[in-house]
Amino acid sequence: VTPRLLVVGTGLIGTSIGLAVHGEYDVQLTDAETSRVREAAGRGAGRPWDGASVDLAVVAVPPGRTAATLMEHAGVARYLTHVASCQSAVAADLETADTTRICGGHPLAGREVSGPAGASAELFYGRPWAVCRLPGTSDEARDAVHALAVACGAQPLHLSPGDHDRAVALSSHLPQLAASALAAQLLASEAASVGISGPGLQDTTRVAASSPELWTEILAGNAAHVAPLVADLAGDLGRLADALAVLAHDPADAAARTSVEALLRRGNDGRARVPVKRGVLDRDVAVVRVRIPDRPGSLAELLAAAGGAGVNVEDLRVEHLPGRRTGVAELLVQTGQTAALSAALGGAGFEVLGGADPR
Amino acid sequence: VTPRLLVVGTGLIGTSIGLAVHGEYDVQLTDAETSRVREAAGRGAGRPWDGASVDLAVVAVPPGRTAATLMEHAGVARYLTHVASCQSAVAADLETADTTRICGGHPLAGREVSGPAGASAELFYGRPWAVCRLPGTSDEARDAVHALAVACGAQPLHLSPGDHDRAVALSSHLPQLAASALAAQLLASEAASVGISGPGLQDTTRVAASSPELWTEILAGNAAHVAPLVADLAGDLGRLADALAVLAHDPADAAARTSVEALLRRGNDGRARVPVKRGVLDRDVAVVRVRIPDRPGSLAELLAAAGGAGVNVEDLRVEHLPGRRTGVAELLVQTGQTAALSAALGGAGFEVLGGADPR
Repeated sequence: VTPRLLVVGTGLIGTSIGLAVHGEYDVQLTDAETSRVREAAGRGAGRPWDGASVDLAVVAVPPGRTAATLMEHAGVARYLTHVASCQSAVAADLETADTTRICGGHPLAGREVSGPAGASAELFYGRPWAVCRLPGTSDEARDAVHALAVACGAQPLHLSPGDHDRAVALSSHLPQLAASALAAQLLASEAASVGISGPGLQDTTRVAASSPELWTEILAGNAAHVAPLVADLAGDLGRLADALAVLAHDPADAAARTSVEALLRRGNDGRARVPVKRGVLDRDVAVVRVRIPDRPGSLAELLAAAGGAGVNVEDLRVEHLPGRRTGVAELLVQTGQTAALSAALGGAGFEVLGGADPR
Repeated sequence: VTPRLLVVGTGLIGTSIGLAVHGEYDVQLTDAETSRVREAAGRGAGRPWDGASVDLAVVAVPPGRTAATLMEHAGVARYLTHVASCQSAVAADLETADTTRICGGHPLAGREVSGPAGASAELFYGRPWAVCRLPGTSDEARDAVHALAVACGAQPLHLSPGDHDRAVALSSHLPQLAASALAAQLLASEAASVGISGPGLQDTTRVAASSPELWTEILAGNAAHVAPLVADLAGDLGRLADALAVLAHDPADAAARTSVEALLRRGNDGRARVPVKRGVLDRDVAVVRVRIPDRPGSLAELLAAAGGAGVNVEDLRVEHLPGRRTGVAELLVQTGQTAALSAALGGAGFEVLGGADPR
């Protein structure tokens, strides 16, 4: 028999869950705003809730309303979970409740857009999905959340609410604030100076487009873990500013140079820890760059040649350049496959540029 | 008659210049390390310098050695330029020299790799190339640098050394330091917590892989402009840490929430100023997401369908997902073309996901 899933809150995450599992689950949808239920249902995420009991309810509302929304639906669902970015705050809000049938969850996926229109069945594919048992959570409730994560294509990771919150403070909340604070600095300048920029500015500020309302709630819920990290980052940057102020007067000052270079080196080491995908570190992948004629069909030929050689292209970027007849494609592949790919593309008449550089 | 160009310093930038213009210029190469000249020549960037005079010399050595290297070659080149990320420091180093035949330059291009192996003829395509006249620079010297930038496919931008240095402090040097300081924070944690991350961490830390030696020189040369920006960023983050410390004790504190949300809003506004490509702002492009079967040839069919509809795909990303039969492709197009693209792809049998979301 098909299990019944109730999605409470049909924003980006809730709607994406419905899109991902409909077919495996009988998905019903509810939201404080009826128009959002209609929009999510119209996209194929499920049908409006008929009010009957379900096997699992997933509460996908902003963190501050998560615990209350869980309690409101405790009578209509056998098991309940949520998707909040902070687990301990939700657990604290539930303190006096019976949590036997409740298990925390958090898909490490998201976009800098919100609402059902941005939802996607593939949002969770290959991403970690934290499954965070509360002290009272039963094995059955935990298994129900694990199964939902698997049905979404995610990789369930079991960890405590505290361990989860410490981890995301560093890997998600701190980067958000660094990007926002950096982007905020751009307001101090004339727009023209931002035009004189390379690709680095684009990457480092992308997530600064995220929703301020949602992120204020996320950060308020995990402030105890985030605050000391932000203070550490501010301290490092403050010391860096001091060293640069010394270099402004004497560019050769050895102590100041050593201080700046040491931070850049620590940045190298930290960056080497960042997975390109889960389990794949930077050093395991390489980029093959190829010149492509800027006309319809040439990129298709390129990929056909790669496929013919049996090479799995992990990622591909192409840049069409203004006023030029050619462009450049960058294919990201496992390090061991660069030679085979280069040979195959060369054999198909493409000009391979540069070869294999770590990205 | 083909103009003679001498590239002094065959690293990433020098070798890329040679690759970009050979044919339009008779390119000769020199470097303090002979092996690097061999490597650059082997990649097709030009031939080893025969010692004769040239029309233009481009000095592509680290910023601290730029002025001295320009002076060393003043006798063998009619005009001279360089590619240093800081223009005022080079100008100051040249103070007593005759600068009639010298004009500063700086291509806003680069990669987080260095050396001739990472070089590419396309590195400068569509990128800004600052042309920075010194007080004594002749029109002819300036025109020679302008022509070199155009030959590389770049967009020459004429501005003063001071305006240049202020602009790149904000749009290039500050993002580098923010990314490095953020990545450095990752060292404080167990590697496991970095694995619990979404795509944001990947983007925000990418440039942290850049060379510490080169960047220390760049920053030392522009420290007067960079130091106050880093201090401002540190100050914003320090105030943010204070607000978060308040929220750690009282997640509902209104003043602290307002403070956090205000910074996130400023980040939204700053991000909206960042060009995706030069002249194309975020709001002008949209993403169409398509489900693709994970087999050789499917992406080729997808692009053939887009090409058949006459849609210019600005950028394309594809993700193949572990253990899944399908993947997702994201096509970046001009906002006005999303409907036509979606229709064409749907007509070709592809499932279009989500529609047009701002990226």
